[in-house]
Amino acid sequence: MPAKNAFYAQSGGVTSVINASASAVIQTAKKYPDHIANVYAGKNGILGALREELIDTSLESDETLKALTHTPGGAFGSCRYKLKSLEDNRAEYERLIEVFKAHDIGYFFYNGGNDSADTCLKVSQIAEKLGYPLQAIHVPKTVDNDLPITDCCPGFGSVAKYVAVSTLEAGADVASMAETSTKVFIIEVMGRHAGWIAAAGGLANPHIILFPEVPFDKAKFISAVDRAVKEDGHCIVVASEGAQDAEGNILADAGTVDAFGHKQLGGVAPTIANMIREELGHKYHWALADYLQRSARHLASQSDLDHALAVGEKAVEYAVAGQNAVMPAIIRTGDNPYSWEIQAAPLDQIANVEKMLPAEFIREDGYGITEAAKTYLSALVEGEAPTPWKNGLPVHAKIKGALVAKKLPEWSEK
Amino acid sequence: MPAKNAFYAQSGGVTSVINASASAVIQTAKKYPDHIANVYAGKNGILGALREELIDTSLESDETLKALTHTPGGAFGSCRYKLKSLEDNRAEYERLIEVFKAHDIGYFFYNGGNDSADTCLKVSQIAEKLGYPLQAIHVPKTVDNDLPITDCCPGFGSVAKYVAVSTLEAGADVASMAETSTKVFIIEVMGRHAGWIAAAGGLANPHIILFPEVPFDKAKFISAVDRAVKEDGHCIVVASEGAQDAEGNILADAGTVDAFGHKQLGGVAPTIANMIREELGHKYHWALADYLQRSARHLASQSDLDHALAVGEKAVEYAVAGQNAVMPAIIRTGDNPYSWEIQAAPLDQIANVEKMLPAEFIREDGYGITEAAKTYLSALVEGEAPTPWKNGLPVHAKIKGALVAKKLPEWSEK
Repeated sequence: MPAKNAFYAQSGGVTSVINASASAVIQTAKKYPDHIANVYAGKNGILGALREELIDTSLESDETLKALTHTPGGAFGSCRYKLKSLEDNRAEYERLIEVFKAHDIGYFFYNGGNDSADTCLKVSQIAEKLGYPLQAIHVPKTVDNDLPITDCCPGFGSVAKYVAVSTLEAGADVASMAETSTKVFIIEVMGRHAGWIAAAGGLANPHIILFPEVPFDKAKFISAVDRAVKEDGHCIVVASEGAQDAEGNILADAGTVDAFGHKQLGGVAPTIANMIREELGHKYHWALADYLQRSARHLASQSDLDHALAVGEKAVEYAVAGQNAVMPAIIRTGDNPYSWEIQAAPLDQIANVEKMLPAEFIREDGYGITEAAKTYLSALVEGEAPTPWKNGLPVHAKIKGALVAKKLPEWSEK
Repeated sequence: MPAKNAFYAQSGGVTSVINASASAVIQTAKKYPDHIANVYAGKNGILGALREELIDTSLESDETLKALTHTPGGAFGSCRYKLKSLEDNRAEYERLIEVFKAHDIGYFFYNGGNDSADTCLKVSQIAEKLGYPLQAIHVPKTVDNDLPITDCCPGFGSVAKYVAVSTLEAGADVASMAETSTKVFIIEVMGRHAGWIAAAGGLANPHIILFPEVPFDKAKFISAVDRAVKEDGHCIVVASEGAQDAEGNILADAGTVDAFGHKQLGGVAPTIANMIREELGHKYHWALADYLQRSARHLASQSDLDHALAVGEKAVEYAVAGQNAVMPAIIRTGDNPYSWEIQAAPLDQIANVEKMLPAEFIREDGYGITEAAKTYLSALVEGEAPTPWKNGLPVHAKIKGALVAKKLPEWSEK
């Protein structure tokens, strides 16, 4: 069988190590020239396939490909574009297959989270239905850490490290000034559906963590803040953006209005900061880490980087070995010292399944994490992935991004 | 002359390297046993002197003192406590001198910014008036970078590095997803009076910097955002918390009210994000770095750490050499490569003088920095100050903090 080309795309929210997976896919493919001729990367993710905007990665230097392992963001462009169901928009899937056919693509590597695992599976199915030979491999990536089967998701370990380190550092700052200044500090972190990222803050032993999984109870919360300030002189709160009350109302939507009376999407941090001001009157400060947390490649964990590289490498090996509709999953084989291996997991067991934070990871009072959680998380923040620096700033890759010549008529987006 | 004790105190907002100055003061003092017997550190800054809560640093191990060089926050406690003028509260100054006398303190090292330079000078003056022999040395520290004479202030270089790196990393994230997701990203940084910290974001080449020094013009700003999105697909904004309009109204006070109609202190970022939503409709995200920026010891610059150590060391050398009412100032002697030395600057030329961002550092359009600013800033973010890590987290010092036995009656705070 002559070698076929491969298509690689980045999907959804990027991470500080997604480009490491990209690098691993491209570099590993080069080891199998009998199977894989060239890797085309979708410009802006799956849109690159639909629009026939394929980046020729063979024109990127070895130096650039290596530098991708320490470059945050999505070097080839990512997108939030969910393909509709096969029934609703079969034409879109057919267009994908047309583009694959036109460019002799026999391998599809889709680097994303839950939605893209589903898309990857569907693309595999439609290819089969249409009799087009394609091996579709999902490469896991999501800071949300909510993919099933795999012990963790590349991207999460580095966010976990960022949140733990930031909470620790800001905690030291606040503790030292609480006598006459800020007494309550809140750091708001990502995680709309699950408290994985908030849990990582637990490694810094904050006084209170607000999980989406634990219904917010204002009276109990205020009393916990009060107690911390009385006992420790200050209170550190790690708040998940998804924190919500028993009725499922997200605290961030508590509804502030601007000067013109327009409803303003707030955040959890300012909402609970206001509660503290009203009920206790303490001076407070809050930080919103936002994208900083998922792009902080300078603070990436070595575990996370190792995982990101390994899933990229294994994805190619699986494809070359003839596998289809699978995802390289990270399987933990030991805790202390941490050990792990990669196993192929079938996509139909992954697509549309969300792995929530286990109840046994949440402390009984609902405001902290358990030892089991600490053991789980410590392994993922382990090690400092090196970054090259120049003039005091980290060095990032800049791809050429040259596109392959188009062969098909323009795609009309619907 | 027999050896006297020294008193060291941390003042005002802490930084990621203020403990390095503390460490240098304590360790350098040990080299001059004929002059300095013991260094007492004020628990919670100057309040420690007023309350006679003196931490005996001789009980801290060498390991702890060394670890202070990589510990954020203020290890001995800092405070926001401005001594009143000599006329308004002479008793407070007299109490200080009483405590110094009771504990045989002949050296006063005050580690702070503008206000504490002023206090340090006043303490020196009252000691002289009262005929108490005291050498008062101010050890510079402030993320605001607004002390005169010195080329920069310890603490600033690391915040500058944090802001530049964070802007660079988040910028890569946003650029890669702008096609279908967030188009405008705002990072709000410290600097209520001067744009030094916002200027540091300029090292990451954002599209727009909002300085307190440049009057905010909504129409011009919206048009600049619009142009950036049209040309680059996205727009990165670094906004100083002190950004204000031509009438001096701080944008952060633009006045949102919560659900109960209470006025809410906003921030610059949400205020301008709302403008962008209303005028252009772009999807936006914003981050509020808050204390993370000034406590991020893991990302401290080596230049900054070197400065913090040098001013601590020189402060003791000046004291031992008989100097009084001076501050070790950092004098730049070369740009490329960066070189500097420490010179003694008289406190009466420093107290109450604020060094603003020079006009020649601000680009003509008011939204960026000049080459001169880049040259100035690059030197200060140069080098990565190492941090020891354990289990994926940075190792911080924990002091014993044992207090010296009190000798005086309780101080009654007014």
